[in-house]
Amino acid sequence: MVTRRQVNAGILWTATAATVSMAATTAFAQTAQTIALPAPVMTGGKSLMQALKDRQSIREYADRPLSDRDLSNLLWAAWGVNRAAGDGRTAPRWRDAYLLEIYVTRADGVWHYEPKNHQLLFHVAGDLRGQTTTGQPFVATAPLNLVYAVDMSKLTGTDSEKNAVAGATAAVTGQNVYLYCASAGLATVFRGSVPGEALAKTLRLAPGQVIQFAQTVGYPKA
Amino acid sequence: MVTRRQVNAGILWTATAATVSMAATTAFAQTAQTIALPAPVMTGGKSLMQALKDRQSIREYADRPLSDRDLSNLLWAAWGVNRAAGDGRTAPRWRDAYLLEIYVTRADGVWHYEPKNHQLLFHVAGDLRGQTTTGQPFVATAPLNLVYAVDMSKLTGTDSEKNAVAGATAAVTGQNVYLYCASAGLATVFRGSVPGEALAKTLRLAPGQVIQFAQTVGYPKA
Repeated sequence: MVTRRQVNAGILWTATAATVSMAATTAFAQTAQTIALPAPVMTGGKSLMQALKDRQSIREYADRPLSDRDLSNLLWAAWGVNRAAGDGRTAPRWRDAYLLEIYVTRADGVWHYEPKNHQLLFHVAGDLRGQTTTGQPFVATAPLNLVYAVDMSKLTGTDSEKNAVAGATAAVTGQNVYLYCASAGLATVFRGSVPGEALAKTLRLAPGQVIQFAQTVGYPKA
Repeated sequence: MVTRRQVNAGILWTATAATVSMAATTAFAQTAQTIALPAPVMTGGKSLMQALKDRQSIREYADRPLSDRDLSNLLWAAWGVNRAAGDGRTAPRWRDAYLLEIYVTRADGVWHYEPKNHQLLFHVAGDLRGQTTTGQPFVATAPLNLVYAVDMSKLTGTDSEKNAVAGATAAVTGQNVYLYCASAGLATVFRGSVPGEALAKTLRLAPGQVIQFAQTVGYPKA
């Protein structure tokens, strides 16, 4: 397991060579540590009402990876910066705190979405897609699994309130992903069957970070 | 306090006369117990990406009530039936169970949204808008406050998991409301500061129903 910090520090460079090589096949600028996503495309796509009409859960996926454009648009729709004022996002923050981090698990490793610069930061090596489920076979071969982690150390209130807010924080972004997929002809399902504690260790999350749901994304099976 | 069951049974008819009179000023078909919403309009409005770009929280509202069309579109976007197959909705259900009920609090009383027939069922008399907040003054005069109640008796797992799912269930619908408001030029804010237990009693919710968040909706203050 290689953390982003280790990569940034130049440790274990050899271990990440496979990741670098795979990532190098993508068309946009990147280093070993980051993938700069192309600017999200705001034009085209369906109307909001049509996207709502077409929203559904799909559990059968083609194997092929997401295009750069779909990946960029998807992550911006999920949790991107949508206005300069106050670093506003496409989903609401909680009492002025940004609690959510999205970990993008795919065949070439786990990447951390960084909304301000709209880029992916290398996080952990290895194909961990199958480790984001407690037993749904389609998860391991679908191109993308988004893992939502919420920093619960910043929450106040009763345990019930904190867990409800944490679940809500992941879900608003999950609904954005649903609607983007409906608009772009992608398939997705928001999932509760996630081995949260084990996966948090594998992903070396900070102590306050709790995994709240995951979401599989890909192209529908032909 | 008048429950829907009492009204349906013909009890306390006189007590609801004010409600009936106010509701009668709306343009669409209704009885004392129900308001049939006009069919939601799927054409027009912004693209999904533009709605995501314009999504924001607004806490200053004009006093005027929502138009019939905006109310109909809003509730359909929030939690409407979007396909015949399997009674699919605009927001995901949880393991084949519909857990969410939306109570629409406005000046003429509290109404329960019934997605299958896209109508409002009279629920409780009185202007209870101010009772949906623990102290935000704009709530009492904004035209609409949606109260999200989740039936937690149908959930399994740990308390943490149940609360996370309950919060998520309300939040996906809340995000739909955010995006509809962004598309239609309405103002909204999803709120955690709700006196849940007291309000559940006032609304005479079933024992398993737990209030998870509320959401104010209206026209932006000029």
